[in-house]
Amino acid sequence: MGKGRIEAFSDGVIAIIITIMVLELKTPHGDGLQALVPLIPTLLSYVLSFVYVGIYWNNHHHMFQAVKHVRGGVLWANLHLLFWLSLMPFATSWMDENNFAMTPVMVYGFILLMCGIAFYILSLMLIRVHGRDSDFAQTLGSDRKATLSVCLYILSIILAAINPFISLGIYFIVACIWLVPDRRFERMMQ
Amino acid sequence: MGKGRIEAFSDGVIAIIITIMVLELKTPHGDGLQALVPLIPTLLSYVLSFVYVGIYWNNHHHMFQAVKHVRGGVLWANLHLLFWLSLMPFATSWMDENNFAMTPVMVYGFILLMCGIAFYILSLMLIRVHGRDSDFAQTLGSDRKATLSVCLYILSIILAAINPFISLGIYFIVACIWLVPDRRFERMMQ
Amino acid sequence: MGKGRIEAFSDGVIAIIITIMVLELKTPHGDGLQALVPLIPTLLSYVLSFVYVGIYWNNHHHMFQAVKHVRGGVLWANLHLLFWLSLMPFATSWMDENNFAMTPVMVYGFILLMCGIAFYILSLMLIRVHGRDSDFAQTLGSDRKATLSVCLYILSIILAAINPFISLGIYFIVACIWLVPDRRFERMMQ
Amino acid sequence: MGKGRIEAFSDGVIAIIITIMVLELKTPHGDGLQALVPLIPTLLSYVLSFVYVGIYWNNHHHMFQAVKHVRGGVLWANLHLLFWLSLMPFATSWMDENNFAMTPVMVYGFILLMCGIAFYILSLMLIRVHGRDSDFAQTLGSDRKATLSVCLYILSIILAAINPFISLGIYFIVACIWLVPDRRFERMMQ
Repeated sequence: MGKGRIEAFSDGVIAIIITIMVLELKTPHGDGLQALVPLIPTLLSYVLSFVYVGIYWNNHHHMFQAVKHVRGGVLWANLHLLFWLSLMPFATSWMDENNFAMTPVMVYGFILLMCGIAFYILSLMLIRVHGRDSDFAQTLGSDRKATLSVCLYILSIILAAINPFISLGIYFIVACIWLVPDRRFERMMQ
Repeated sequence: MGKGRIEAFSDGVIAIIITIMVLELKTPHGDGLQALVPLIPTLLSYVLSFVYVGIYWNNHHHMFQAVKHVRGGVLWANLHLLFWLSLMPFATSWMDENNFAMTPVMVYGFILLMCGIAFYILSLMLIRVHGRDSDFAQTLGSDRKATLSVCLYILSIILAAINPFISLGIYFIVACIWLVPDRRFERMMQ
Repeated sequence: MGKGRIEAFSDGVIAIIITIMVLELKTPHGDGLQALVPLIPTLLSYVLSFVYVGIYWNNHHHMFQAVKHVRGGVLWANLHLLFWLSLMPFATSWMDENNFAMTPVMVYGFILLMCGIAFYILSLMLIRVHGRDSDFAQTLGSDRKATLSVCLYILSIILAAINPFISLGIYFIVACIWLVPDRRFERMMQ
Repeated sequence: MGKGRIEAFSDGVIAIIITIMVLELKTPHGDGLQALVPLIPTLLSYVLSFVYVGIYWNNHHHMFQAVKHVRGGVLWANLHLLFWLSLMPFATSWMDENNFAMTPVMVYGFILLMCGIAFYILSLMLIRVHGRDSDFAQTLGSDRKATLSVCLYILSIILAAINPFISLGIYFIVACIWLVPDRRFERMMQ
């Protein structure tokens, strides 16, 4: 099976997820700059989630560059990833409407964790389709960045019990780690 | 006529349907985990509908793999399927907002039934375009899974009168039947 | 310029337009079948608009089959068409929320008229790009169906002053005329 | 890396942005034409923003025509552009709900400015990928139109302090400048 449609469908779903989050930015009452002040936490959490969904689109794009073909199981692993990504708008708005309280920040971290795990499952599925000795599997190698992220998500869920802003700091750091694009697949392409 | 655009348009519509359902998950008031408890039925019915829409995307994807060309009638049969799928978010939210009461569960089953019938009509249209002796028609063969699903949907609509949770159990079983991907078209491709 | 992206963008916008109309079907209060009764006009006008947007997607698809290349002006003529189509959800919900009163039915007809004119402008632009003697222009020929529709839209806007249901009847008839797919471009392809 | 997916994803996001703005056109109460009168500023600002988002799609389309390949940095520069574009619906609705008051008109201009800058950064990134002596860089040349727009945006933000309608006039003029499509990339293609 070709990979064209799984890419197109994922692009569509991720495009909608990344865009509907902006609907949380409700039009403020009042026409002064100070009317925007209460929106700052909403805007900041929108930026954070925008970057995270952007990272997943980026990594998805990079990984599928190297994909040669897909099978039924891959379609479901991909839908599983999209499912957890689709909960991002909910987790984001719950977090910002409660001013980054402990539980919403934990739940946000949990959704990030599940997205990370779902992406890992998808990569395992793709390795199984291409074979352990394929170029694809070789390129993927041991994914240190992904493992590190998962550990940091778990850590941040725990640390939210002490102070949710520590967790937010960790989410910010993980985002920065991923902003540096993944060169492995680019190198393989060459 | 090529099949590229009918695939792209269907991907777009299905991507939107699968994503707008998450908007039903309204941000809860309160920042504790217990604030999430009333959302559990909404979340479960979201998962069920996400899986169903995912199944239709999957089957659509599989079937169109084997499609060589399309005609005007196919476009309309496809739009007809998208129409019934577009009612899934409505049926889902009516069902969960009424705690899985009898009538909403029946209507949900009715929408699933109509989606099943619409998919069947689409496959008939495609057989007519490709000819009865085409590879496409041979591969499709007698679609036992689809026939079984339609029977189970009708059964579940009737049984909802006794207990809606029997129907929900049947919807769950049908979803499981379809989660096993359809190998026929993959085999044909080889 | 290739036509791939103009098709993809139009598919995206039309997919969103056709899907957000379903958001008008608000979840009813009450769990009996009678709770669905007040939704019947909303559902019927959703079906009508779904069919109309479907027709435009269909005709767009058919026409672009024959398109060889596009230019800047075509992009804007296409955006102009998408603009009027994007007002369909608004016109639909105004019409059904006012139980098909005179003015909303007229405005609905006006939007249909503008979509028809925008489609006509788009076809003129494409003829200019391909040349008067091109296969494209020959195939398009004199578009009797389109001219007839525009006349019927104007007629229905006027007749709404007598009885809006006459106009709705005309909208229904025009939709039926278009449901028969346009064979000209299919024939040309062969 | 191919450019197919970055185009598809951008098309998806821009299609959603351009369409969700129409949701601001709330169904009016009352069924007479006078019920539409309070919607006129909303409609006009929708048209303005529709045209602006359309311009960005157009320019994006034109620029990517000439793109040969992309790299990780380009993906992020593109997401950065989409981020600012995604704030257009917010800025639009804030502006029209406050009857084009000073601050909202300034903020609208600021978002336009940031979109302009983001587009400029994207073009710089693409030049770096293709090389200073590439056809791509040669075609882009010195972008007088873009520089002029940025200056006009800054001017309009300042002039809004005197009268917001001067700014709106400038936004209108800049839109007109861009409506004339960019021939450079078309010429290069030939």
